[in-house]
Amino acid sequence: MTSSWLEIPAGSPFTLANLPYGTFVDGSGESRLGVAIGDQIIDVGALAEGADLVVPLSGATSVDDVLRLDRPTWRELRAQLVALLSDSASPGDRDAVRGALVPSVDVRMVLPFTVRDYVDFYSSIEHATNLGRLMRPDGEPLLPNWRHLPVGYHGRSSTVVVSGTDVRRPKGQTKPADAPSPVFGPSRLLDFELEVGFVTGGGASVHGDPIAIGDAEDHIYGIVLVNDWSARDVQAWEYQPLGPFLAKSFATSISPWVVPLEALEPFRVPAPPQDPEPLPYLQEAKRRGIDLRLRVRVNGTAVTDTNFRDMYWTMAQQLAHMTVNGTIISPGDLYASGTVSGAQQGTQGSLIELTSRGANPITLDDGSTRTFLDDGDTVTIDGWCGDGDAAVGFGSVAGTVLPAR
Amino acid sequence: MTSSWLEIPAGSPFTLANLPYGTFVDGSGESRLGVAIGDQIIDVGALAEGADLVVPLSGATSVDDVLRLDRPTWRELRAQLVALLSDSASPGDRDAVRGALVPSVDVRMVLPFTVRDYVDFYSSIEHATNLGRLMRPDGEPLLPNWRHLPVGYHGRSSTVVVSGTDVRRPKGQTKPADAPSPVFGPSRLLDFELEVGFVTGGGASVHGDPIAIGDAEDHIYGIVLVNDWSARDVQAWEYQPLGPFLAKSFATSISPWVVPLEALEPFRVPAPPQDPEPLPYLQEAKRRGIDLRLRVRVNGTAVTDTNFRDMYWTMAQQLAHMTVNGTIISPGDLYASGTVSGAQQGTQGSLIELTSRGANPITLDDGSTRTFLDDGDTVTIDGWCGDGDAAVGFGSVAGTVLPAR
Repeated sequence: MTSSWLEIPAGSPFTLANLPYGTFVDGSGESRLGVAIGDQIIDVGALAEGADLVVPLSGATSVDDVLRLDRPTWRELRAQLVALLSDSASPGDRDAVRGALVPSVDVRMVLPFTVRDYVDFYSSIEHATNLGRLMRPDGEPLLPNWRHLPVGYHGRSSTVVVSGTDVRRPKGQTKPADAPSPVFGPSRLLDFELEVGFVTGGGASVHGDPIAIGDAEDHIYGIVLVNDWSARDVQAWEYQPLGPFLAKSFATSISPWVVPLEALEPFRVPAPPQDPEPLPYLQEAKRRGIDLRLRVRVNGTAVTDTNFRDMYWTMAQQLAHMTVNGTIISPGDLYASGTVSGAQQGTQGSLIELTSRGANPITLDDGSTRTFLDDGDTVTIDGWCGDGDAAVGFGSVAGTVLPAR
Repeated sequence: MTSSWLEIPAGSPFTLANLPYGTFVDGSGESRLGVAIGDQIIDVGALAEGADLVVPLSGATSVDDVLRLDRPTWRELRAQLVALLSDSASPGDRDAVRGALVPSVDVRMVLPFTVRDYVDFYSSIEHATNLGRLMRPDGEPLLPNWRHLPVGYHGRSSTVVVSGTDVRRPKGQTKPADAPSPVFGPSRLLDFELEVGFVTGGGASVHGDPIAIGDAEDHIYGIVLVNDWSARDVQAWEYQPLGPFLAKSFATSISPWVVPLEALEPFRVPAPPQDPEPLPYLQEAKRRGIDLRLRVRVNGTAVTDTNFRDMYWTMAQQLAHMTVNGTIISPGDLYASGTVSGAQQGTQGSLIELTSRGANPITLDDGSTRTFLDDGDTVTIDGWCGDGDAAVGFGSVAGTVLPAR
């Protein structure tokens, strides 16, 4: 295990094994590309002035500048950053890094990259089963297509926001069961959805050319945590026949640090077997998930403790499926996993599941109960792999519910 | 009626009453902002060198440079262009225009603007009824929400392409009725959808602030023709419960010229009454459609002749509904109407409707028949308002089907 000359506080998610990229705004109001290390940030554009980086990044302003590179360059740059930070770094290298360090507390994190197309999948079999039971109590919980393809849909890019952004409770049409026609007002069933998203990089793919499943991960730069805020009452009324729309498009929160796929390599685990076997274009030589622990807190109370490792459809399958019709993927596309849920109580990634659509309220540490979110509630999702010096943490994605306007 | 010193061929869609913006690539390979007039194009960036435009557009490279302005500026710039082109223009003004003219045949049109969020609505009551009858023959053709809100969903931005781009037949999963499980291969039910799309401009709206219905049209810069190519067999298998995805995301074609809303003012007509009356946020003091004739040809044979005027949900209602949850609209968002269909045979905007899902083939002028599109077929959509010197034409959006790879 390489260690760093730079002091990294114990328990920090941002170890030398991690090195995630993010975008911050410094005191002068300028947007800068950063790498998190302990409780500091390396201003990569400033580092490029003092060190001879493998790729020109002088003045880099956001993670967009990294996403447009390719996997071999991402690897080289990462190796160089590790070398500059490791105990074996020369005094000159250390000086170059020191000249580019900014304390995390002095800056404001902003949306890390320009979100191009945003897709939300539905790839946890436990979540799809839980939702199916709640939505269609008299039918089979899983629809016939679910085990044959990773179901997904396009979401709204303009309202993907960074952690810390307040989320205003949306207004919309809902249809109470006992009303003859819909009513308008603030959503009364505001929920979170715990998700994990991957971000594509490299050049845009070629229109008409699918990405083979064996090549899919080469197009994935890294991973963020996602809260896919959902207005359940709006969704129930609007979603037939073309899918969720205003129930989701008011806000989607992501964590500020994009964790590179390379950093997650030690935590890759076999993905669960699939039954039935999917069509050949979705078959993988080696199915791999990520052993990524996830926790959701509402106002500090842990309500969900689960893991990303058992997702039925892998990221590679999602990308291979999505491009099999020849669609284009671009640097900055965001692909969310769908809600990550387990089968046991307390492992489900949404309130609609945790409370059985409001039938069984949960109790927070202050003694109050929740079926769905109240105004003023803060939802915080954390994620981490491993522990100690080898830990790779995602930090968190948090947001507070503002009352409807 | 103002007339122009510049010769405009009879029957041209690009009269002095029109002045649509587009993006072209000139001989040097550079992208330029253009205004169509007759069979020529004004290079706006070049015009800005010789004339004192109301807004700095020197070197303008695409319609993006127009979309970021606002309605008052769009109006001023339009008035200035009309003045420069009218019979009363000074010799100096005429020289400035002449110095910026490029023959249309010498350039290549490209995607006019950077597509941000793309939404597809479902706003023709005839289309929704026709589809409902075909998809759910035993139920009510219109779902309960349809008359209460403009149903819509997000589509894929990366594959919005300009007219003239070939469209490769997508491969995908389909589930034949008599098969125990899905099969993979080229779509066998490839269709077009005749649509009309509006493009938003001005600054990005404020997150959390809905756009009131009375203000909605201030955010619309102009209109394009849209072909929302659809793989019906892929759609039927994938679309439950989250809506169409790969059945649409392989390609969406738009016409190269964005016709400004100002140019369509003489063709605004009362929109049809609504029953029941919608909720207050969707009520309009004056409901207005556009008397816009639309025609679809397959390999030159006219198969659809219809009109945009009778859409049940107006553009203003679509925008007011979509933002009522506080979502952000951006310059360059594309909002397609959904398939424009009438009730009579020959007025439906898709083959699935024209042929009753393949039961009644149509015959082309060469004697061949079609249920859905064959490889090599060219689909051309034309649109125009009015006639003679006062006509405002959209030109066309065309695309040819390439065989699956």
